[in-house]
Amino acid sequence: MGRTSDAKEKILNAAHSLIELRGYSALGVAEICKAADVPKGSFYYFFESKEALALAVLDEHWHTQRGEWARALEGDAEPLSRLRRLFEQTQAGLRAGQQSCGTVSGCMFGNLTLELSNQTEPIRARLQQIFDAQVEMVDTVIAEARERGEVTAGDTRDAARSVVAQLEGQVLFAKLYNNTQHLEALWENCLALLSARPTGMAAVRSSGPT
Amino acid sequence: MGRTSDAKEKILNAAHSLIELRGYSALGVAEICKAADVPKGSFYYFFESKEALALAVLDEHWHTQRGEWARALEGDAEPLSRLRRLFEQTQAGLRAGQQSCGTVSGCMFGNLTLELSNQTEPIRARLQQIFDAQVEMVDTVIAEARERGEVTAGDTRDAARSVVAQLEGQVLFAKLYNNTQHLEALWENCLALLSARPTGMAAVRSSGPT
Repeated sequence: MGRTSDAKEKILNAAHSLIELRGYSALGVAEICKAADVPKGSFYYFFESKEALALAVLDEHWHTQRGEWARALEGDAEPLSRLRRLFEQTQAGLRAGQQSCGTVSGCMFGNLTLELSNQTEPIRARLQQIFDAQVEMVDTVIAEARERGEVTAGDTRDAARSVVAQLEGQVLFAKLYNNTQHLEALWENCLALLSARPTGMAAVRSSGPT
Repeated sequence: MGRTSDAKEKILNAAHSLIELRGYSALGVAEICKAADVPKGSFYYFFESKEALALAVLDEHWHTQRGEWARALEGDAEPLSRLRRLFEQTQAGLRAGQQSCGTVSGCMFGNLTLELSNQTEPIRARLQQIFDAQVEMVDTVIAEARERGEVTAGDTRDAARSVVAQLEGQVLFAKLYNNTQHLEALWENCLALLSARPTGMAAVRSSGPT
């Protein structure tokens, strides 16, 4: 096997699972290689350091998640329904992870932000780009809802950041209590944060599962 | 020096600073003892493990922070003004920390929740108790505001959890961007999450610094 792209994929997959379970600092390169079933020499052929590997894991995870966010937030449905879809999708994803590994692993980007952002500037910069992109995606939907007169949020960028902050905070609680029900508050909280108009929202409020 | 309570205090202080800067997993007992300037034997005289030390650091930090939260949230001022005081105090504390060490270290409880709650059950349980207590303190103030007809939040416990979630989410952004200005959104977001009544809130909205 050794120096093949298969080995690189194995290292990335093993690192992704281990970082999700135990964070970054607790891991050593030897442990990652053992879990990936590749010799240590392969690691340094593909990655110059553990930090370089973490950046590759972040990129790959965001590549996947950005697709999921786009599927939730884009399309022909009403803008606020799409935001709701993002929350439901996030909750479903965390619940599926909990069922397969026994615990809610939370958001890898939030986890690494609180564990690492003060320790490595390249990882901080990458996480900033990822959260900027998330806020941008939510902002686009909020701006659309505002154009339709459905929300009154003054600065849609600030509102989007507050919505993502609420998401990260509730995911933190879901992880802490190993309970995804905390995410059920997201939809009503989002409407409140956006100063959504009760009249305009009546249909959306009752359109999804309760 | 050795086995004196002075040595215990030194270990706790060193561990507190190191955990705040670099989290838990990245630290070794030898490094903590070196920073505390105590022999390694002293460590195991006072603490049976690094986990036991982390629990002691959490307890001490919460003892201090609970006092600060009580000073903000209790007293004769109007209930919502006291909530606002908590946000301002949190922002001022993070700003002071940033000025002294160059970076926003964030919330130690949030940091350790995302780094550790899935790895050690005793630390998860202690962090649950601490966040439960925070939510309880905020709940008490919200219930008081509701009795005065100033907020319309249905379930004050859920509302309190959403307010603390928003706080943790914005502190995450403050740490990520090393910028405490993100916390300025907390007050308006709190009013939105509590469905505070605009008329009742006019005085409070304009009573503090902008």
